[in-house]
Amino acid sequence: MSEVLTKGKLAKEAAAKLVAKTTEEKNNALSIIAEQLQKETPYILKENEKDIENGKANGLSDALIDRLLLNEERINGMIESLRQLIYLQDPVGEVLESWTRPNGLQIEKVRVPLGVVGMIYEARPNVTIDASSLCLKTGNAVLLRGSSSALHSNMAIVKVIREALEKANFPADSVQLLEDTSRETAAEMFKLNDYLDVLIPRGGKNLIKTVVENSSVPVLETGAGNCHVFIDESADKKMAIDITVNAKTQRPSVCNAAETLLIHENWNKEYIRELIEKLEEKNVELRVDQALYNEFPHLKLATEEDWETEYLDYTMAVKLVSNVDEAIEHINRYGTNHSEAIITENAANVEKFFKLVDSAALYHNASTRFTDGFEFGFGAEIGISTQKLHARGPMGLPALTSTKYIIKGSGQIRE
Amino acid sequence: MSEVLTKGKLAKEAAAKLVAKTTEEKNNALSIIAEQLQKETPYILKENEKDIENGKANGLSDALIDRLLLNEERINGMIESLRQLIYLQDPVGEVLESWTRPNGLQIEKVRVPLGVVGMIYEARPNVTIDASSLCLKTGNAVLLRGSSSALHSNMAIVKVIREALEKANFPADSVQLLEDTSRETAAEMFKLNDYLDVLIPRGGKNLIKTVVENSSVPVLETGAGNCHVFIDESADKKMAIDITVNAKTQRPSVCNAAETLLIHENWNKEYIRELIEKLEEKNVELRVDQALYNEFPHLKLATEEDWETEYLDYTMAVKLVSNVDEAIEHINRYGTNHSEAIITENAANVEKFFKLVDSAALYHNASTRFTDGFEFGFGAEIGISTQKLHARGPMGLPALTSTKYIIKGSGQIRE
Repeated sequence: MSEVLTKGKLAKEAAAKLVAKTTEEKNNALSIIAEQLQKETPYILKENEKDIENGKANGLSDALIDRLLLNEERINGMIESLRQLIYLQDPVGEVLESWTRPNGLQIEKVRVPLGVVGMIYEARPNVTIDASSLCLKTGNAVLLRGSSSALHSNMAIVKVIREALEKANFPADSVQLLEDTSRETAAEMFKLNDYLDVLIPRGGKNLIKTVVENSSVPVLETGAGNCHVFIDESADKKMAIDITVNAKTQRPSVCNAAETLLIHENWNKEYIRELIEKLEEKNVELRVDQALYNEFPHLKLATEEDWETEYLDYTMAVKLVSNVDEAIEHINRYGTNHSEAIITENAANVEKFFKLVDSAALYHNASTRFTDGFEFGFGAEIGISTQKLHARGPMGLPALTSTKYIIKGSGQIRE
Repeated sequence: MSEVLTKGKLAKEAAAKLVAKTTEEKNNALSIIAEQLQKETPYILKENEKDIENGKANGLSDALIDRLLLNEERINGMIESLRQLIYLQDPVGEVLESWTRPNGLQIEKVRVPLGVVGMIYEARPNVTIDASSLCLKTGNAVLLRGSSSALHSNMAIVKVIREALEKANFPADSVQLLEDTSRETAAEMFKLNDYLDVLIPRGGKNLIKTVVENSSVPVLETGAGNCHVFIDESADKKMAIDITVNAKTQRPSVCNAAETLLIHENWNKEYIRELIEKLEEKNVELRVDQALYNEFPHLKLATEEDWETEYLDYTMAVKLVSNVDEAIEHINRYGTNHSEAIITENAANVEKFFKLVDSAALYHNASTRFTDGFEFGFGAEIGISTQKLHARGPMGLPALTSTKYIIKGSGQIRE
């Protein structure tokens, strides 16, 4: 039997035991994992060094090496997240609805774990501890498939977690890592419907695309964010400039950073000039439509492709629109339904924007950068869903749960 | 451009207009559809006759012909369902949660339509009107692909719906039917991620399996129900017999009918004898395990396959178990996570059963036949989900919605 199939079965068996664990037992397990990570930090760092050496030998970029790198500070960060997770409310067992039918049947809708979560992710070893702890808190078993470049680090972290699980009297197979990181194991996971309840890809656009296109296991899609800021005719100058600069430059490499700026054609030309200057001061390359190009010929002319691009960099496409309707149409056409902001003093336009833009998070007079589980106050984040089924936008712990109906009767039969 | 792609694009455009419709406007459209169906009944019946004639010429079974057949009574039934749908609460616009962050951002989680729903279904033309009206009520556009055997009926119904939509000032493309019902159009729908937000298969096991295995569009899986009744040691005789007979024979062809009976080995032997007699009186063929076979040698001996089979017929597998744990293990191993009942007077066993059996609906002292949107009081049913993402168990109107976050600020930027 293949590694994927063997571990898939073991995960399902572990999941069947995890549903019986109380919140206290789960929190205790998380606490023991935190202690073991502390104690085993030297071992994990030693194993991480192997990945770093291999990475350098294989010519990985400095940025990738940095993503791979663990040090005491980063491990302490993981431990700190674990300890915070203990204080978060356990969604499992929550009664979401309850009612009694005329025939006396009492129906309750109760939150339960999903079962087995499959994670396919790239480089960063912190996802290993993140995913494992979030799944444990919600009573799920997890089957992890990281990248080969982080294999030593991942194996070390999972070894430490599994030892902690045994100490906590939890099935060690609640957390498993695939040691074979070939394409074949990913392909096998895509079809593992008998053992996986959901597959969550974490990583670049291509990884996510491959998973979505090939998985018959239900997928929680996260990722792409071609986010927009629309400055309406009535927008306050300072607010518009501050929010646009923040949405673009506060951290350009993340999915909730703005990529395209739409400006109402009647917005004050001097304001536009000032906004452009502020963005240029921050080293943002602007790619503008013909109308703006005529006005500001030192800028680059945008192509059709620019409207579709998630730059994740100091680049921004800019276009004049004649009204809020054109802005909405542009966003729904070129966007990725992630996060969009309207800057305006016009209440009717806000309402229209909120109603008609088909995105996970819509902002009035605030930066798109707030689309984030922590900024929303969830205390944890599984990712930001860009699909419409199950969960949309920032996902907290409840996104890792399902529900069941519990019905109490006294002999009812159907006529 | 192919029919699927063309209609997919038109559906997405229609969906963008549907989100702006109020509950009153949607109810008005449903009411006009009901009127038009009434008026056009002779036309629909004439078109249905063509399908019936073709069906007979192609040698369809009487049961299939009956599923295809429309008559005045059945059309009146559809119209009645439509009128009831008007009175159901519109889930769209409902604020599910709202809170304010320390930085003053006001966040609301609001229900919105899914967008475009793809339906792939078999014979029954009533699904055409059912799916269309449920989607319209929830503000979704729908792309329908019925079976070739019902093509004339489906085309006629969709024509009538589209005429009604135009009268109601709705985009006619809110409801579209694929006229090409070849395998290729289904395959094209499976990959139509740019235009479909969800794909719902309705029909037999093979149809659903094909969709789940091949679709990269998120699927709402409905269907298979290998449901169990477990009679515990302490079960009341009359209750156990009534519920088992009801769960098996009240309507054996549906997914929430019981297929396997598990009996605690210490349950009174005379009760078992009486239960077997009652089931035999109803013409149920019993396939029993070795222990029961020794006791009742006139019955058939079950094979491993019987534990996995959804008979959808007057057949039932029966097995003795030594305790509730063995019953739970059997159900989780062989079941399809649909609906299961425990008959017992032992509260601890109920709790264990509710916690450890991994199914959408769990019953204490009631028949599994109640797993149904109408019996649950939802007033409508999209289907019964057997997956764990998005919706599980009977699905009412909210299963056809997603959510978005609406965030109101006053210039907030991220530090």
